[in-house]
Amino acid sequence: MQFTAQQIATLLQGRLEGDPAATVNNLAKIEEARDGDLCFLSNRKYEEYIYSSAASIIIVNETLQLTAPVNTTLIRVKDAYSSFATLLEHYNNIISGNGKTGVEQPSYVSPKARIGANVYIGAFSYVDDNAVLADGVQICPGSFVGRDVRIGKDSKIYAGVRIYQGCILGNNVIVHSGAIIGGDGFGFAPLSDGSYKKIAQIGNVVIEDDVEIGANTTIDRATMGSTIIRHGVKLDNLIQIAHNVEIGANTVIAAQTGISGSTRIGKNCVIGGQVGIVGHIQIADGTRINAQSGVSKSVTVENTTLNSSPAFDYKSSLKSQAIFRNLPELQNRLLKLEETVQELTALLSIQNTEYKK
Amino acid sequence: MQFTAQQIATLLQGRLEGDPAATVNNLAKIEEARDGDLCFLSNRKYEEYIYSSAASIIIVNETLQLTAPVNTTLIRVKDAYSSFATLLEHYNNIISGNGKTGVEQPSYVSPKARIGANVYIGAFSYVDDNAVLADGVQICPGSFVGRDVRIGKDSKIYAGVRIYQGCILGNNVIVHSGAIIGGDGFGFAPLSDGSYKKIAQIGNVVIEDDVEIGANTTIDRATMGSTIIRHGVKLDNLIQIAHNVEIGANTVIAAQTGISGSTRIGKNCVIGGQVGIVGHIQIADGTRINAQSGVSKSVTVENTTLNSSPAFDYKSSLKSQAIFRNLPELQNRLLKLEETVQELTALLSIQNTEYKK
Amino acid sequence: MQFTAQQIATLLQGRLEGDPAATVNNLAKIEEARDGDLCFLSNRKYEEYIYSSAASIIIVNETLQLTAPVNTTLIRVKDAYSSFATLLEHYNNIISGNGKTGVEQPSYVSPKARIGANVYIGAFSYVDDNAVLADGVQICPGSFVGRDVRIGKDSKIYAGVRIYQGCILGNNVIVHSGAIIGGDGFGFAPLSDGSYKKIAQIGNVVIEDDVEIGANTTIDRATMGSTIIRHGVKLDNLIQIAHNVEIGANTVIAAQTGISGSTRIGKNCVIGGQVGIVGHIQIADGTRINAQSGVSKSVTVENTTLNSSPAFDYKSSLKSQAIFRNLPELQNRLLKLEETVQELTALLSIQNTEYKK
Repeated sequence: MQFTAQQIATLLQGRLEGDPAATVNNLAKIEEARDGDLCFLSNRKYEEYIYSSAASIIIVNETLQLTAPVNTTLIRVKDAYSSFATLLEHYNNIISGNGKTGVEQPSYVSPKARIGANVYIGAFSYVDDNAVLADGVQICPGSFVGRDVRIGKDSKIYAGVRIYQGCILGNNVIVHSGAIIGGDGFGFAPLSDGSYKKIAQIGNVVIEDDVEIGANTTIDRATMGSTIIRHGVKLDNLIQIAHNVEIGANTVIAAQTGISGSTRIGKNCVIGGQVGIVGHIQIADGTRINAQSGVSKSVTVENTTLNSSPAFDYKSSLKSQAIFRNLPELQNRLLKLEETVQELTALLSIQNTEYKK
Repeated sequence: MQFTAQQIATLLQGRLEGDPAATVNNLAKIEEARDGDLCFLSNRKYEEYIYSSAASIIIVNETLQLTAPVNTTLIRVKDAYSSFATLLEHYNNIISGNGKTGVEQPSYVSPKARIGANVYIGAFSYVDDNAVLADGVQICPGSFVGRDVRIGKDSKIYAGVRIYQGCILGNNVIVHSGAIIGGDGFGFAPLSDGSYKKIAQIGNVVIEDDVEIGANTTIDRATMGSTIIRHGVKLDNLIQIAHNVEIGANTVIAAQTGISGSTRIGKNCVIGGQVGIVGHIQIADGTRINAQSGVSKSVTVENTTLNSSPAFDYKSSLKSQAIFRNLPELQNRLLKLEETVQELTALLSIQNTEYKK
Repeated sequence: MQFTAQQIATLLQGRLEGDPAATVNNLAKIEEARDGDLCFLSNRKYEEYIYSSAASIIIVNETLQLTAPVNTTLIRVKDAYSSFATLLEHYNNIISGNGKTGVEQPSYVSPKARIGANVYIGAFSYVDDNAVLADGVQICPGSFVGRDVRIGKDSKIYAGVRIYQGCILGNNVIVHSGAIIGGDGFGFAPLSDGSYKKIAQIGNVVIEDDVEIGANTTIDRATMGSTIIRHGVKLDNLIQIAHNVEIGANTVIAAQTGISGSTRIGKNCVIGGQVGIVGHIQIADGTRINAQSGVSKSVTVENTTLNSSPAFDYKSSLKSQAIFRNLPELQNRLLKLEETVQELTALLSIQNTEYKK
């Protein structure tokens, strides 16, 4: 596939500087671009590359001021990053095709399931009784959609996803391979002999619109009621969401983080990787949590930034962490001081003795 | 489904206070209950709700003393939590049905496999040569049961579980979706050129009765001998159990914890989420390990509680963590003291000089 | 299966001491061996067992000097550990058989896929358009091989692996069950209303020869270009590799570690379990990172050893960690010193007053 600068400028409604006939056949990063590549400049850190890049076309912000001549054809747009993302999407749609539709064989679709228009059900997928797949849903090969599950319009379930009975997914949800939605919450009542009795988990998982769920992430069903993932939430891979958790709208969580039972995360939070959050607490809207932090108490003030395990205020934590690295030196200073004070005390005691004579 | 207070009291062998004809059609938490809901009160923290709850029936401990009139029908039982768990289970059995039985098509069952009575093998499941499925076993769709695997009575393997060749599961074992049992242990011999030679892992995994294994948890086969999960163990999601580990009876482990090779965990331990335990150590019976701890040494005293990474005594760790948060203040105090002592020293040296004149 | 000491000595090109007709039918560890077992002695820690072991045959280093009589038949070889690994492999090949070949039904193989000689495609596996499986590839049951995927000679894909469109695997690669290769990188552009726009991930994953990937590990495709796993890398279970990461040759990573986007790990590194590494940094060749460390800055010096979160020099970190445990005592010493200094100051001020009178 080849595109001209003119075609791209038209698509992005951008202003062209240079050769309208310049052609590209690949997308690349500005620092790695070669002849025939299209790239973008958004981060000023990379501005120097614009003067040396071998790229054929570079998308830049309309406000960019050049400080030297440029050999490359530029396309000026309002937001270079966003425009490039649009191009990536176009490119992705072209290479991905329109997606498959229809029911591939062999697959298992219960006669009691309700299947919308333009649905794809891949081979070896299982759609159980009373499941409802809205128009445009794609169930890739080898997935499992349990009894009474409902999946909203245009949602894409990649290969090998398992959705337990009764869970509800909204529109435009993306679930990556290996994710498990609606497994039993981890609930056991201790018995007097030291063993545990399983607490049946009769709730479900509700996932609202525009959520993306990463590969091998697990979201447990509620004991009663629902584990809720609000609209626009983005979950990375290998995340654990326990029973009865609620995650607020547009919150983003990086890989391998775990959230314990009944905790409520606010909206617009940004949570790093490998974070742990205990159960039964509330995290205010806009909270930011650094990677590997351990949060053991509710966060009541919005837009707080946390760090460390146990987590506390980010800036303070950086100071504590810096001193931690120097603890041997601190200890030495203390030791030295103890010696000095001991000498002083001794000296003073002699003085006093002499003085009082 | 509707139940009367009388029916429930009879089922739970409880004592009814209020309207025997009160009906419920849903289970709920006391703080969220509405008309038509049944809930329970066990934690005294929630006692206030009993006077304001809109629930139709509340299960309470027989020892509960009311301090004000209650509008709701009460059922008094020995242990409200345990009785409610019983009800959840009943409810769950009703909504889940009796479970499927028989071999769904298409599936692959080796003619050399031995299948008991009332077994369910879901579509797209694979049961390899010489596998033995005891009576009542359920293999949900899309699971893999390797050669020579044995699964005991009434065990339930959810959709998309993989059990490698030769592993043995007891009775009443529950394995959630995506769990991998018996993958190769992580064993490699370093060669002189910096590369690694794989050490064949010829052992297996043995899981005893009444174990539950969470979604996407991985349990590796032993190099030789067995990785062993003793009866009654409960493992949450995304846990890693390395080769030749042994986990003692009725030990409970929360999500995303990892246990390295050849470590032996005692019985009745409670291990939090995201804990790491190094290889080749022993953890005594009844050990409790706080979330995100890192255990690098054997625990020899039973019923120890550990915290922090590297882990040490829980109470001490809380003190250290509190001081960690105040390290900048501690450092300031030290600095101030150094200055004071310097002044004192200077002063004393002058004095001495003068004094000795 | 039974083997004589003579057969084994011949196979290993070892020197026999004892009964050439001694027979074994099992491999075991020296500390657990019984009659009929073959074991090895490599670690001098276990040397005492050689004099008491009930094993029928023990493989030892040719340099081993006996200090007492031994009842067992010995086979002396250059490197006992390596020879035993060879035996494990032989044994494993025997019990595993030659592996299956051919296409099991039902499975889905696109007519546009290219399948080499002696390939095994297990039932319920899906091989999409233009996928290329080289000679000797094994795709175990229920796996998914996406469009344009290429898998090199003799690679083994265990049951339930998902490989997204366009990814490339080398020769002799082993991928364990539940691993997800090529899921979308976690890339979203924040919009002004607080929601996020997905950045299409149009790159792929490239895995070179002799790599092993553990169960339920996830490796994301690059935004553009490739996420690269160099030859000889060994990844344990439940690891997260983000988009555009590169991992150098013969690097070994233990379970549950996560590596964030665009980070480049050198070759011959050894990374422990539950380590977190931030995005966009470089880790020098030969770096060793202790379990649960959090690496937030590039490592520029080769063969550095890191520990703690945030990570710093291993030896220093051990000292800081030791002092951390004693922080309450350190704080007490500081407090005591403050009191002493206060007394000294008071005393000195009196003295001065008196002295100056």
